[in-house]
Amino acid sequence: MDRFFNPRSIAIIGSFREGYFGGYVMVHSLLGAGYEGSIFPVNPGYREIHGIKVYPSLRDIPGTADVAVVMINARSVTAMLKECADQGIRSVVVVSDGFAERDEEGVRLQQEVVSFAGSLGLRIIGPNTAGVVNTANGFNPCPYEAGYYKLRQGVTAICAQTGMINPQAFAYPDMRFGVSKICDFGNKCDVDECDLLEYLEEDGKTEVISMYLESILNGPRFMKLASRVATKKPVLVLKAGRTEDGAKASESHTGSLAMDDRIFEAACAQAGILRLDRFRDIFEMPKIFSSQERLSGNRVGILTVTGGVAVVAIDECAKQGLSVASLGQDAAGALEKLFVGLGKNPVDVGPMMAAVPNAFDLYPKILGAILGDRNVDALFTVLWATPAGNVISRYVEAYERLKTQFKKPVVSWIYGPDAGAVAELAGRLEQIGFPVYDTPEKCIRALGLAWKYRRCTAHGGIA
Amino acid sequence: MDRFFNPRSIAIIGSFREGYFGGYVMVHSLLGAGYEGSIFPVNPGYREIHGIKVYPSLRDIPGTADVAVVMINARSVTAMLKECADQGIRSVVVVSDGFAERDEEGVRLQQEVVSFAGSLGLRIIGPNTAGVVNTANGFNPCPYEAGYYKLRQGVTAICAQTGMINPQAFAYPDMRFGVSKICDFGNKCDVDECDLLEYLEEDGKTEVISMYLESILNGPRFMKLASRVATKKPVLVLKAGRTEDGAKASESHTGSLAMDDRIFEAACAQAGILRLDRFRDIFEMPKIFSSQERLSGNRVGILTVTGGVAVVAIDECAKQGLSVASLGQDAAGALEKLFVGLGKNPVDVGPMMAAVPNAFDLYPKILGAILGDRNVDALFTVLWATPAGNVISRYVEAYERLKTQFKKPVVSWIYGPDAGAVAELAGRLEQIGFPVYDTPEKCIRALGLAWKYRRCTAHGGIA
Repeated sequence: MDRFFNPRSIAIIGSFREGYFGGYVMVHSLLGAGYEGSIFPVNPGYREIHGIKVYPSLRDIPGTADVAVVMINARSVTAMLKECADQGIRSVVVVSDGFAERDEEGVRLQQEVVSFAGSLGLRIIGPNTAGVVNTANGFNPCPYEAGYYKLRQGVTAICAQTGMINPQAFAYPDMRFGVSKICDFGNKCDVDECDLLEYLEEDGKTEVISMYLESILNGPRFMKLASRVATKKPVLVLKAGRTEDGAKASESHTGSLAMDDRIFEAACAQAGILRLDRFRDIFEMPKIFSSQERLSGNRVGILTVTGGVAVVAIDECAKQGLSVASLGQDAAGALEKLFVGLGKNPVDVGPMMAAVPNAFDLYPKILGAILGDRNVDALFTVLWATPAGNVISRYVEAYERLKTQFKKPVVSWIYGPDAGAVAELAGRLEQIGFPVYDTPEKCIRALGLAWKYRRCTAHGGIA
Repeated sequence: MDRFFNPRSIAIIGSFREGYFGGYVMVHSLLGAGYEGSIFPVNPGYREIHGIKVYPSLRDIPGTADVAVVMINARSVTAMLKECADQGIRSVVVVSDGFAERDEEGVRLQQEVVSFAGSLGLRIIGPNTAGVVNTANGFNPCPYEAGYYKLRQGVTAICAQTGMINPQAFAYPDMRFGVSKICDFGNKCDVDECDLLEYLEEDGKTEVISMYLESILNGPRFMKLASRVATKKPVLVLKAGRTEDGAKASESHTGSLAMDDRIFEAACAQAGILRLDRFRDIFEMPKIFSSQERLSGNRVGILTVTGGVAVVAIDECAKQGLSVASLGQDAAGALEKLFVGLGKNPVDVGPMMAAVPNAFDLYPKILGAILGDRNVDALFTVLWATPAGNVISRYVEAYERLKTQFKKPVVSWIYGPDAGAVAELAGRLEQIGFPVYDTPEKCIRALGLAWKYRRCTAHGGIA
């Protein structure tokens, strides 16, 4: 498996016509990402691409390649696998589509690939995949033009049964918490979620695993593995094809059969898998784990500028099994001394902000009082951003101090009349390691997942 | 009620100290929004503010005012109401806080306000409110500095039991579908959701009503009214304080008692109220109604660049009571002729995009084939945006044609590696009247609400 992510050399077999897809783009992606291994483009019709020699056939490349990427007509793939094996290549990414996701003929071709690869001892990712990325070594053989090539290094691995997680589909440069590895299983005729789980379990660069699955090929194996991995790192799974229609659509997407959703739900709870609900969760929920301290309890402090959002958040807390912290006497007293009415959770600074000219001077004290309270396990903050009056910097300064002072998760939601100021403050807080979500509900859901993880690691299962 | 939204003159009683809150800001907001009525700031300590004369007391203003806004200490409000009545002012917005949301003393003060106003025949919005906005006449007396003052005119009225919907809290300039009126009820000691519903029912500028409520003061009246209004315009309601903790928090937010959530749920279904789930829904869900044709059936066509998102969308369709359309022979045949494999719903153009150099030339034909199909009632599109190759303009051109050709709702989700390109395409599509949501699930939820509305108007109730 490691050869797929850490190859010393890659052979690329396909068209090198200039465009948005194919070998031309892939070589460009690798160069742009700073991959330092050898790149061997293979195509009899080209001599050079992006300044790199193109070889007429696999037989002509110097030595062998640790991994080959195949982007040719589905019908020719099996023959190419044979060539790969002949050249000593054992790891192949089949980008080509037109297999089990297409039609009967495709199903047959895929079976052929499987049995052929099996007999030759090859490992296959795909077919119908956008491939892999490893941010640690610049290995980004993305076959689609993304417009950017370097991804920020981080500790989250994202794996999916869709190319929707690869660089061409998602604005990773805007994601302030980076990724370690990306893998699109495609039709997963060979390498599947279990192989990835096993690999990522031992991967020192990965601390959180986030997956999108439409099917699980070997349910018992997956659950056994996941429950072992979950004791070491959080495993987040979005399972699509939950409904009958969805399952049918998944069949024609990646040619795979879905499992009964209720069984999966129960099994997740048993195995300590953190189940996701929405597509964006795949990217957004890992950051509570990758950037924040682990939760030690479920009592949430709420610091808000507006009572309305506190009510929304408290409703969501109840849904997530979180409780609203009751402030201890010390914290309540300290807050009450700062401004009358402040000494209860949710701590609503709205009236204070309107009444006190330099309210921001008090902000660090308020944060400190809440987070220093032994009755508070985590903090949800609602921040009002404005481009005026240095407000953004004041918030950032206050948060800077928290980093070293407290070992409790803090999640923030930012609102305000100026989208630019909201984005700027979000960016700056995330830069210093505090996750920001774009709805109050998401903030609480993130804490809910952290609490679920805490329970499942403490008692060996969520249920 | 109309005097609150269409006053010929406004008296503003409070502090005019320069800052982010209060009379200083309010006068600025009104001037910035282009309000053409008379503005009478009232405060003995000032002579002029933003070039406008300040009057020492209400008695000194010339004639009377259609509406007064009061921003003084809670304890002085009752006395000020008396002055208002003496000057013939019948409509008062009480921005001041420190009432039922604060403590026992505040509860008492609020009761005093209520009985006083009742005896004097005044109508009160608030206390503890950020007030109202009317985009038609530039009446934007926002007491908080928002940094912008003009809001785009539209057909959606947004009312809430929180100032989180007023200009200082939300980036209305970025919302491409404008609003007609905004109203924060605050503690709603007098004017409440029922008054607003009644008013908005007859308001020619309002076609959609979106509300955030923590409590409903008169359940039966609200339900009766809402069910009548819902036959004319969609009424969307986010009800917070659904859980026990949330209800308790709501009490200290606006001093109001929540109703049992299950009763509310059943009543909504009965009355044809479209219930919202998430805070952002208040702003985002109305646009399916304000910009799109009404749904005539529940069969959804899906046009996607990626199979994975289609599966996610189909799962969501099932949750929303929508079905995945089966294409008719004509449409299927036409699509299949354009590219093999295209003739089934979801229509996945992914393989075509990778294989055909000028795939975008086919886009209008594909859209036309799906929307022209009698078996398709609405369309969900997944668009891949890139700054390269004029792609954004090609999409926009294709959508331009749809506007006149088809009377079916179209909702879009846009993804891609470049956040700027995604935002640009979203902006341009919304400019020409096609709503874009930032997750695939939201697109389908919007169609789900449209379908719910269709059912409730067709049969007089959703249940």
